[in-house]
Amino acid sequence: MTTPNTSNPFADNGLYHADVVLPVCGDAFQRADAALIEQLQVVSSATASALLHRMGIRQTFIEGPRTRIPGTKVVGSAITLQFMPQREDVASGLQQEHSEKYSALWAVLETVQQGDVLTIQAYGDPYTGCLGEMLVTYFQARGGVGIVVDGFIRDVPKVQQIGLPMWVRGSTPNYASQASLFPWAYNVPIACSRVLVLPGDIILADDDGAVLIPRQVAPQLVKLTLEHEDWETFSRMRIQQGGTLGKYYPLDAEGRQEYEQWRDTPPND
Amino acid sequence: MTTPNTSNPFADNGLYHADVVLPVCGDAFQRADAALIEQLQVVSSATASALLHRMGIRQTFIEGPRTRIPGTKVVGSAITLQFMPQREDVASGLQQEHSEKYSALWAVLETVQQGDVLTIQAYGDPYTGCLGEMLVTYFQARGGVGIVVDGFIRDVPKVQQIGLPMWVRGSTPNYASQASLFPWAYNVPIACSRVLVLPGDIILADDDGAVLIPRQVAPQLVKLTLEHEDWETFSRMRIQQGGTLGKYYPLDAEGRQEYEQWRDTPPND
Amino acid sequence: MTTPNTSNPFADNGLYHADVVLPVCGDAFQRADAALIEQLQVVSSATASALLHRMGIRQTFIEGPRTRIPGTKVVGSAITLQFMPQREDVASGLQQEHSEKYSALWAVLETVQQGDVLTIQAYGDPYTGCLGEMLVTYFQARGGVGIVVDGFIRDVPKVQQIGLPMWVRGSTPNYASQASLFPWAYNVPIACSRVLVLPGDIILADDDGAVLIPRQVAPQLVKLTLEHEDWETFSRMRIQQGGTLGKYYPLDAEGRQEYEQWRDTPPND
Amino acid sequence: MTTPNTSNPFADNGLYHADVVLPVCGDAFQRADAALIEQLQVVSSATASALLHRMGIRQTFIEGPRTRIPGTKVVGSAITLQFMPQREDVASGLQQEHSEKYSALWAVLETVQQGDVLTIQAYGDPYTGCLGEMLVTYFQARGGVGIVVDGFIRDVPKVQQIGLPMWVRGSTPNYASQASLFPWAYNVPIACSRVLVLPGDIILADDDGAVLIPRQVAPQLVKLTLEHEDWETFSRMRIQQGGTLGKYYPLDAEGRQEYEQWRDTPPND
Amino acid sequence: MTTPNTSNPFADNGLYHADVVLPVCGDAFQRADAALIEQLQVVSSATASALLHRMGIRQTFIEGPRTRIPGTKVVGSAITLQFMPQREDVASGLQQEHSEKYSALWAVLETVQQGDVLTIQAYGDPYTGCLGEMLVTYFQARGGVGIVVDGFIRDVPKVQQIGLPMWVRGSTPNYASQASLFPWAYNVPIACSRVLVLPGDIILADDDGAVLIPRQVAPQLVKLTLEHEDWETFSRMRIQQGGTLGKYYPLDAEGRQEYEQWRDTPPND
Amino acid sequence: MTTPNTSNPFADNGLYHADVVLPVCGDAFQRADAALIEQLQVVSSATASALLHRMGIRQTFIEGPRTRIPGTKVVGSAITLQFMPQREDVASGLQQEHSEKYSALWAVLETVQQGDVLTIQAYGDPYTGCLGEMLVTYFQARGGVGIVVDGFIRDVPKVQQIGLPMWVRGSTPNYASQASLFPWAYNVPIACSRVLVLPGDIILADDDGAVLIPRQVAPQLVKLTLEHEDWETFSRMRIQQGGTLGKYYPLDAEGRQEYEQWRDTPPND
Repeated sequence: MTTPNTSNPFADNGLYHADVVLPVCGDAFQRADAALIEQLQVVSSATASALLHRMGIRQTFIEGPRTRIPGTKVVGSAITLQFMPQREDVASGLQQEHSEKYSALWAVLETVQQGDVLTIQAYGDPYTGCLGEMLVTYFQARGGVGIVVDGFIRDVPKVQQIGLPMWVRGSTPNYASQASLFPWAYNVPIACSRVLVLPGDIILADDDGAVLIPRQVAPQLVKLTLEHEDWETFSRMRIQQGGTLGKYYPLDAEGRQEYEQWRDTPPND
Repeated sequence: MTTPNTSNPFADNGLYHADVVLPVCGDAFQRADAALIEQLQVVSSATASALLHRMGIRQTFIEGPRTRIPGTKVVGSAITLQFMPQREDVASGLQQEHSEKYSALWAVLETVQQGDVLTIQAYGDPYTGCLGEMLVTYFQARGGVGIVVDGFIRDVPKVQQIGLPMWVRGSTPNYASQASLFPWAYNVPIACSRVLVLPGDIILADDDGAVLIPRQVAPQLVKLTLEHEDWETFSRMRIQQGGTLGKYYPLDAEGRQEYEQWRDTPPND
Repeated sequence: MTTPNTSNPFADNGLYHADVVLPVCGDAFQRADAALIEQLQVVSSATASALLHRMGIRQTFIEGPRTRIPGTKVVGSAITLQFMPQREDVASGLQQEHSEKYSALWAVLETVQQGDVLTIQAYGDPYTGCLGEMLVTYFQARGGVGIVVDGFIRDVPKVQQIGLPMWVRGSTPNYASQASLFPWAYNVPIACSRVLVLPGDIILADDDGAVLIPRQVAPQLVKLTLEHEDWETFSRMRIQQGGTLGKYYPLDAEGRQEYEQWRDTPPND
Repeated sequence: MTTPNTSNPFADNGLYHADVVLPVCGDAFQRADAALIEQLQVVSSATASALLHRMGIRQTFIEGPRTRIPGTKVVGSAITLQFMPQREDVASGLQQEHSEKYSALWAVLETVQQGDVLTIQAYGDPYTGCLGEMLVTYFQARGGVGIVVDGFIRDVPKVQQIGLPMWVRGSTPNYASQASLFPWAYNVPIACSRVLVLPGDIILADDDGAVLIPRQVAPQLVKLTLEHEDWETFSRMRIQQGGTLGKYYPLDAEGRQEYEQWRDTPPND
Repeated sequence: MTTPNTSNPFADNGLYHADVVLPVCGDAFQRADAALIEQLQVVSSATASALLHRMGIRQTFIEGPRTRIPGTKVVGSAITLQFMPQREDVASGLQQEHSEKYSALWAVLETVQQGDVLTIQAYGDPYTGCLGEMLVTYFQARGGVGIVVDGFIRDVPKVQQIGLPMWVRGSTPNYASQASLFPWAYNVPIACSRVLVLPGDIILADDDGAVLIPRQVAPQLVKLTLEHEDWETFSRMRIQQGGTLGKYYPLDAEGRQEYEQWRDTPPND
Repeated sequence: MTTPNTSNPFADNGLYHADVVLPVCGDAFQRADAALIEQLQVVSSATASALLHRMGIRQTFIEGPRTRIPGTKVVGSAITLQFMPQREDVASGLQQEHSEKYSALWAVLETVQQGDVLTIQAYGDPYTGCLGEMLVTYFQARGGVGIVVDGFIRDVPKVQQIGLPMWVRGSTPNYASQASLFPWAYNVPIACSRVLVLPGDIILADDDGAVLIPRQVAPQLVKLTLEHEDWETFSRMRIQQGGTLGKYYPLDAEGRQEYEQWRDTPPND
């Protein structure tokens, strides 16, 4: 990993740990094509989770964070932020609300590109408010489209009005380094809940929750989804028309034959 | 218990456990009369829980599941579904999203009658989505009126639109047998959170949560409630008119005398 | 502490513990001036928590209770209620829903003054419904403006309609002494979640959660907030106009100079 | 409650809260007779818990604390210590390990009498070491016979050598006010885990855990135990001789007749 | 399932639920051959868990229960006991410690055969003491060799002296139906922690914990273990002689060649 | 960070993520002098935690791991291992127990120097056995003196015999990558429980638990401890001789004077 030239605000506190230069910055990474992201808009988190499981990738559901605005959905490239426990001789917010200014929290926001989803490892700590109004505003202004936090945010009365889709564990009045954590690294691999997220991976989130999609398998996921969604549309229709579950969900041999006929029939005859 | 002739989908995987035939199906059971269910519509879960406690039945609140649609209420007969831990040599969804088709999950839906409430033992596991859109649609189409899950559901973006009253712990993108559980038995006694629910028991749920009402004591509960609700209406009125809590809630001797006079007075003089 | 003359309802159960007279009532206490409370209306819980931390008071966020009515906010003087574990030989609700009538729960409601916030230590127990419709109605009628419970309430279908701002962990159909707790003392120091609340302290709650403000430091908090809010207004404006985070949040030397100029400029030139 | 003249160490910190005088001291209380305590030595915690439940007192098991020295047992009169959350303007150990010297922790130790069991409400916090070597030494020197903490202790390498029976949740290197709690009151009613303990109640603890025995019901408990233990001795003997569970545990009619004959037979014929 | 003729002790309480006959008894089942059990004595729980995972069976570790007697190990056939939540109208121990006499708890003990391991589903409830001294004594007298409880036991001061290998979550003074559970069924499939255990399955437990071994795959497990243990013995020897991890654990190509030579060399040259 | 040339075992699984090269290896770091470590042998974890708190460093107690061998103590330089969630397209142990061979788990063991303490971030997962017999043997053979795991180990029946001091949350039969985690990085900064540990920091652990000591402040800690331990020795003596807590613990002015006299008195007059 490379380390930027940001000066360390703890360097003059007499206890400075010479081995650490903060914030830690991950290696350069590649985002998915906008076209691929666009194709993923038709995929639900439920379909993504099921198909990834079928493809052999089992831990993709980021358990814990829930949508703050029911009905919203987001797909985008992950940029990441990792908190670590505070240590007053290394990195701490003990003295000041704004000691975070030179931290990974500010730094990651300068890397936002159009379509990014900020994904944060924060250990579910209810005493750490990872983000507040100002930072969310800035994030959105730079093109960010959604935020997933394995933890809490603050300033909800104002953040809620911004309307950005967010998946969080809850709210807290505390600022990011007020309690026991500190923003440590950005755009590094993180453990978000029990899911490994690499910068440049794809995050897809809706009312069911947030799901990790490895960038490399996304095209295959789109392909499988389109087929899957297709017969599900047919099944839903038949069930609403009184069809039995046994025949139509999932399709049995007879149901599949019927589906293929329906699928291959020109719409207008 | 009787075991239906459903063929076991795991029978050909080479590790098949000869002692188990799935899904397990409970004995026949009796539902409450529709008239009794209708009478229970005036009872709140708070009143039911308090009166059942007074009658000596203490564990009736199904702690954990919360309403997905605030303001909805349901009373109905319990049909039950019980998950068990997966075992690849017995029952597992490892290979396929739809291996559940021959499981208790599909089977229980074929037993739905008008007015039923599906009640599910799922150990609060956030990685198991007990039900999704298709199954909820089918459940409602067959006359089901509500669902109580000690666990999670999936497809919330679509399920929410169906509008069926549901009490759940949360949402997940995972399907029912994607993680560590499998739909094992239906219409058997279950432990839903810390409450014993027998098929044919009555489930009453509103914004306070879901409560179990033993079928046999329901008539007595209705009787006590009507009296209870009656003086509470009077008390609420008096308190809104400036009356003291000491006199009116609950009624002291003087308050009760006043209430009885009020109750026995013809409305129009 | 003084003990009121309320007769103990458990005195005749044959197991009465001679050493305890209930309910326990705390010493007299002083509330904050209404003018001070009014000034605090401009403070958010996020600002309060951050500034109190800077003033050296670290545990002020009452973690756990969440708003029941998003968008509401309350500031007021704390009156307190403390539950303790039940013991049938001392205090218990085993026999009757209304044995609480002579308890601290009823007693604290008789001490409500205009602008009070009722704050309750209830150990987060989901089987204890600390308050229901009647009591909330009475509380509001006497001038109470908000309720913070480290626990659960009941009668939510009706309580929600009252519209009183409340921060709670959740809802339950159980009444206050139905399970394992009993209303023990009122207007005594309590541990609400992990925060020490003294009667007469100030409670400020909004969508981020509830925060404790010591009465004596509230004036200083108002002073610091006004300054803080002021430059934040400026910063928000600049960031929305495309300014950088580095310069405007928090203000660097150049940003502060710009802010001071802006602040000191007469509005109309 | 009365408040001793102990001067408050926080009075000069500029933020001192005029309404609080620490430590809080409970009212005078009565201990059980030494003879009664002696009689209780034959009772196990299992028997005490079962018989108290039969007598209608249900919450007596202090869940959480486990014995530090397997095989030890203690019966004695409860003296109590209650922690509360820290607040730097009221009571805190932020600055110094020994700010506790003027707190309830030191105060309660001056009230120890021969045969006392110190019982501590500490919310199970693993970052608070309620007691260490010096205080345990002092406690034992004054006649204390056991300690039950709903929390953690420190100095275990040395405390273990003292050999005093202790039931605790675990060990920690932190001192009593190092993290988020402070020793607040002593010899007041406390909630130890989910059990109400009054000063002067009896605590009985062995390898099964610690149980609360109300002082007033202890004589009845002794009486019931002696009878209970008696037939259990007979049952154990018969089962070891090959008797059936159905006849001998608990005794059925035939078994009881046999037992009574055995019991009433002079030992030597 | 078949139901034995045991009369139901709740039948005369006026609230009896006509649909339930207790205790529930599972179908007949087959135990493993004693020879197979004997062969499994060389397998550690660590080896069993790893090899079962390789064979595709993932959930075999019964997480939670820990050994009460470090250094003991047991292998045997599972007999099972399942607790369910109490309901006073169906099954409860509210009135009497010994109402369990006609329950599944007593019933399962009459089915013990030489070499059995009693496995109990008890939801980890610390207020339920599933077994005490008398029952453990009886179990051992009938040939039982070990007990695994996803919950707590009581009478530990005496149980510990019996010396029977047991894996439990902890100890409690409460009896089996004193709190919220009741012994419901025996020799039925159970969920022990997160593992499905069928009667007749094999339980293997040592200091690492308890592991489920499906009866049908046990012979294959023995075969794989013997090979596995063999090269591990060689590896341990080489590492103690200063060999590198890279070569000897696990064996690389060169290490394997060396091992095979060592294995095939007659011991005495 | 630098990345060693270790070839990635996942490179040929068809889903390989091109952005990740495993294992991740941290930067070079410096260990403390052996003389400093030796001086720290007189410090207990309790003293270290208290003095570090006084020096302004608050989060040093690694909560969770407990000693496996009561009475042992260790001080040494931290080397670190960090687990991350598995992902089958990046790093997973799904297929084989020994896929860990090319992981950070094997790699970190090749960096052990005399006196090292291996410190592991493993999220407290009971299904991940971070280390077993072979690796512990190898670690000890290379000079390692202790292990602290925020998680579980396996092979306890054999590991216990090795006698190496270890602080762990518990035991499990599972191997390191059997469940949901994978050994990801070594000798990087880690979050062990809620404590930031840098490679080269000092770990001190005894029966109270494990404590982090920043390398740079260790000399000051030794100095403070020696003074602290000194007067504590005096205090202990006086309290055992009947002295009062008020005078001798901590020393009041008079006690301190007495202590200084005692300290400065030549031993032999």
